[in-house]
Amino acid sequence: MNRLGKQTFVFNNYPRVIGNYSVVGPKEGKGNFAQFFDEISDNDLFGEKSYEKAESKMIEYTITQAIANAKLKPDEVDVMLAGDLMNQITSSSFAARSLSIPYAGMFGACSTMAESLCIGACLVDGGYVSNAVCATGSHFSSAEKQFRYPLELGTQRPPTSQWTVTGAGCTVLARNDSGIAVTSATIGKVVDWGVTDANNMGAAMAPAAFDTIATHLQDTGREPDYYDLILTGDLGKLGSEILMDLLEYKGYKLGKNYSDCGQMIYANYQKTFMGGSGCGCGASILNSYVLQRMRSGHLKNVLFVATGALMSTVSAQQGESIPCIAHGVVLKGDL
Amino acid sequence: MNRLGKQTFVFNNYPRVIGNYSVVGPKEGKGNFAQFFDEISDNDLFGEKSYEKAESKMIEYTITQAIANAKLKPDEVDVMLAGDLMNQITSSSFAARSLSIPYAGMFGACSTMAESLCIGACLVDGGYVSNAVCATGSHFSSAEKQFRYPLELGTQRPPTSQWTVTGAGCTVLARNDSGIAVTSATIGKVVDWGVTDANNMGAAMAPAAFDTIATHLQDTGREPDYYDLILTGDLGKLGSEILMDLLEYKGYKLGKNYSDCGQMIYANYQKTFMGGSGCGCGASILNSYVLQRMRSGHLKNVLFVATGALMSTVSAQQGESIPCIAHGVVLKGDL
Repeated sequence: MNRLGKQTFVFNNYPRVIGNYSVVGPKEGKGNFAQFFDEISDNDLFGEKSYEKAESKMIEYTITQAIANAKLKPDEVDVMLAGDLMNQITSSSFAARSLSIPYAGMFGACSTMAESLCIGACLVDGGYVSNAVCATGSHFSSAEKQFRYPLELGTQRPPTSQWTVTGAGCTVLARNDSGIAVTSATIGKVVDWGVTDANNMGAAMAPAAFDTIATHLQDTGREPDYYDLILTGDLGKLGSEILMDLLEYKGYKLGKNYSDCGQMIYANYQKTFMGGSGCGCGASILNSYVLQRMRSGHLKNVLFVATGALMSTVSAQQGESIPCIAHGVVLKGDL
Repeated sequence: MNRLGKQTFVFNNYPRVIGNYSVVGPKEGKGNFAQFFDEISDNDLFGEKSYEKAESKMIEYTITQAIANAKLKPDEVDVMLAGDLMNQITSSSFAARSLSIPYAGMFGACSTMAESLCIGACLVDGGYVSNAVCATGSHFSSAEKQFRYPLELGTQRPPTSQWTVTGAGCTVLARNDSGIAVTSATIGKVVDWGVTDANNMGAAMAPAAFDTIATHLQDTGREPDYYDLILTGDLGKLGSEILMDLLEYKGYKLGKNYSDCGQMIYANYQKTFMGGSGCGCGASILNSYVLQRMRSGHLKNVLFVATGALMSTVSAQQGESIPCIAHGVVLKGDL
């Protein structure tokens, strides 16, 4: 069995990152990580007529560039694993239509980057595909329109809110002799501690991150300091603090090796309150800053834990609390 | 490599069906396959207050019964792979919340049963999990409300329309010495031939089924008559005819060994026009009639090809045509 403990898959054939790419919108391009992103668009419509089409175009473009970065042609790609926040994950599906690559749609909301890496690593490691494109993205304006209010309303944002990142990230995995390897992954359970406030995603998602990280550490017998970096996807400031509290209560102390992409991506002056969120948040930081720091040898062992809130507007209107999930992926610098 | 041709995964460790279950609503319980379903509900609200909650309850119940049928307890299940038609696949995610099983959300619209079986077979075959729950379901009333018109409007249905099946199916896979095996799977590409009519799903999805079946036959070097049964998920009467025409044009003749779950499930007097559709259509027929006929030895080699239409209401309103996909799974009677 390629398995550790209850929920952790082990990849003995070392699926490796053979290409990656990140694209973000104008606001993200003025944030803390501007220098690391592969591309910053100066127009958040990406030349399209609607934000939904813009999101799809952005994801498609990011995947195209990642495939080129991996020195592959689109018709040499064996499978595309992608998803997004739009109803029926249309952004990813329309990208898959244009790219004409065999496609399995994933849905883990903002945890999709980790979910697609986890399934992609299984498919590559198990020899079912020779390579896998793992991708996701999100767009501030399409997400606000779908989940909250039309931007034209000018609704005031509450202090616990986060800003959905306009951005996309793509990782291409393949069996290879060298490069950053995906060595294991921990698949999460749906965790719901009763938060109902769609403007407090950090509080809703922190228990899911807690559950997956604690399970991962138990499954692997590791302590948090095994990792140079434990990186959550988009808990934001409040969610990150809740996560640290919860893990400390369980006996795990996260120190300077812990960061959260949502907390990192925007500069303070950008007034996003709790920070960034969305599929594109973790995906763009992972596929830029993190992989670059791993390639330069500054980071060796990284645990990337993307968290997702799985509610819909209908479930919220019907009084349901927010079910959340987190998946963890372990990346290891060149072995 | 556990792979054949361009898009086909091969499972040399024979992941097998160790349990399954099907549940349908009252209308389906008066159709042609009533005697085969494990359970027929006499109330399409399944005791809940909304159709969305009913759909989730039905999926959760079906999975619970399939797990029991596999002689497992929920905490012995390693992963649940499921999805549905609701925005953000909430029916499956809320079921995963109740069941507390590690969960990866799938989205392939009505192709989800085949997608989850395909990924589930990879995870079991590769030894990443000891078992996998693969499930999906749909509900006529929640689907009409979300994708078309509220039922209260009493909108007239056009003659090409299909009736979304209220039903769910679940298959539990594990490595086992005996039982029906999943021997290979062909993952589909997104195919879009420009159909824009959301009331003609059969015509939209037939080219995707054609592409996947033709690819599968090329990848495996088989002729259609290798299979006792080639079964599409929910093309309906018109879609099935288009599929047969397209395959014949390519030199593959489907004969008496071809059926479509959408065409099979309702009786003529039920006036569903082109037949059934929805994730629950293929899922409920596969997990009742097909597996029963395989266990009784009447069917040995089955190619199950579920098709999905990947549009959303927003993409339709923005003038997009309907992107479709089909995934194929090969089931083999006890070897």
